[in-house]
Amino acid sequence: MNVLVAGGAGFIGSNLIDALLTEGHRVVCIDNFFIGTRANISHLSGHPQFLFYERDLSDLAAVDEIFQRERFDFVFHMAANSDIQASAKDPVIEYRNTYTTTFNLLESMRVHNVKQLFFCSTSAVYGDVQGVKISETYAPLMPISYYGACKLGCEGLISAFSYMNGFHSLILRFPNVIGPRLTHGAVFDFITRLWQNPKKLTILGDGRQCKPYLYVKDLVDCIMCFKENLPEGVTLYNTGGETQSTVKEIADIVCREMGLRDVEFHYTGGRGGWKGDVPVFAYDLSKIHAAGWYAAMTSDEAVAQTVKDVLSCKQ
Amino acid sequence: MNVLVAGGAGFIGSNLIDALLTEGHRVVCIDNFFIGTRANISHLSGHPQFLFYERDLSDLAAVDEIFQRERFDFVFHMAANSDIQASAKDPVIEYRNTYTTTFNLLESMRVHNVKQLFFCSTSAVYGDVQGVKISETYAPLMPISYYGACKLGCEGLISAFSYMNGFHSLILRFPNVIGPRLTHGAVFDFITRLWQNPKKLTILGDGRQCKPYLYVKDLVDCIMCFKENLPEGVTLYNTGGETQSTVKEIADIVCREMGLRDVEFHYTGGRGGWKGDVPVFAYDLSKIHAAGWYAAMTSDEAVAQTVKDVLSCKQ
Repeated sequence: MNVLVAGGAGFIGSNLIDALLTEGHRVVCIDNFFIGTRANISHLSGHPQFLFYERDLSDLAAVDEIFQRERFDFVFHMAANSDIQASAKDPVIEYRNTYTTTFNLLESMRVHNVKQLFFCSTSAVYGDVQGVKISETYAPLMPISYYGACKLGCEGLISAFSYMNGFHSLILRFPNVIGPRLTHGAVFDFITRLWQNPKKLTILGDGRQCKPYLYVKDLVDCIMCFKENLPEGVTLYNTGGETQSTVKEIADIVCREMGLRDVEFHYTGGRGGWKGDVPVFAYDLSKIHAAGWYAAMTSDEAVAQTVKDVLSCKQ
Repeated sequence: MNVLVAGGAGFIGSNLIDALLTEGHRVVCIDNFFIGTRANISHLSGHPQFLFYERDLSDLAAVDEIFQRERFDFVFHMAANSDIQASAKDPVIEYRNTYTTTFNLLESMRVHNVKQLFFCSTSAVYGDVQGVKISETYAPLMPISYYGACKLGCEGLISAFSYMNGFHSLILRFPNVIGPRLTHGAVFDFITRLWQNPKKLTILGDGRQCKPYLYVKDLVDCIMCFKENLPEGVTLYNTGGETQSTVKEIADIVCREMGLRDVEFHYTGGRGGWKGDVPVFAYDLSKIHAAGWYAAMTSDEAVAQTVKDVLSCKQ
């Protein structure tokens, strides 16, 4: 296939490109390096099946111009503002980089008759849900972050564009994803803080935030698996593993993998790490399990492997 | 209160302004006359409690400038593209006039510390749901029109902005609303077609589309009632009556009220009137009934009264 990976210089996008190239597809990548980096795709330079455009997906004319030039079979839309804390201070980031980029891609697909789509959604669309394992039919959806809000809006757009234009769309709602090329989040922050000061670690919240962490290769495997034979309309799955890690456990794993002992943990306190953070959640994964997919790694294994990835990258 | 009615020159907005002025509030209206009309607010010219700005709400700087000048206590957000058939051909209309207008108002409320909001949502957020009475907790939400998609996105934004900034927000998901100053929809279209040709009426679809129609004064009554003592966060209701009208019944009522007999009905065929139209739905109204609110008119009564309103307006 000739595929577009929008936001392909980002953490998840660049890992997906590696898998798509391995499977023999021609990959066109668009990124504006707002969060993505040149380093993430530098190993692809000169690859005969890889083409890169530096463009801002929030510019409809720029997106349209590439769709005119290329004939895409499939769009993998990985572009978004993934830094929830940044948009908490400036929601316009989310409007532009998460919602508008999605609208522009869908509109270009409509105009240029591209029918297959993968979209990265998130557990953040559910909001702060406690006491139940969240299934895909949980309602009402009351996101508490601008990120979750815009991703929910994107899902709505995908539903309407799919119905109106016969798209075959896959939406995966996944939790925190970690692994090589990670750029932010608790695991990343802890490692960088401990590099600066290996004796003391500041931890946002009370450390009891408890969420599933998904290893990026598990997620890529999931996307590669479900992209095949997509039916018309929207196919929606919660995606992740069945286990969770607390922030305290993550701190312990990071210290262990870095060979650090007797690190003093300093908690900033409060239920969530920051306003808009969902501190505790767990998924009902019956639907994706029934479809035959399971995560290979537990949440703690994903954390430990990610620390190894980041450390080996630094060496 | 000093209130903003965004989109106040529109059908529902102008009816709401009349009620707000009657209750003694100072009303600032913003409209760009994209769908709203000068005629809808001409009777307010010179009213000491009414102020009008001709602005495009999709321009954040223009909205911000008014929020700087005025100190609003409450924002009634009635601005949207309400013409689903128009945006079916050009989804950018919906992105700009429904989603972006909402983002800009919420962002201006955040920046200027305005805390109370009313938002017009719609049954279109649910998509094409058959065989159940739809409650507020129905999921998954799979809108089939760009209109429903963007309204769902707006609801997500309101949820996040409310959580992040302590807004008190009221969202009503209502069905077709009809009454004086109506600008489109089956009732309006039938009347204008019968003025052109009183012997023959073209009806989109098979005539069996069956939906609840809500009289605009019932909706305004509902907004005026629930705007009081709003709790922090989002208060969400399905709003409407318990009865429905088929398109065939609407055609019969319009002919009867216009004094026309033996009109030949010509059906274009198909389940829906157009692609993106939800042909049949019914609401579960338990939640709003439990809160003490009921529509005064049945769906058929609303249709008959609307025909009288439109005819008396023409005379």
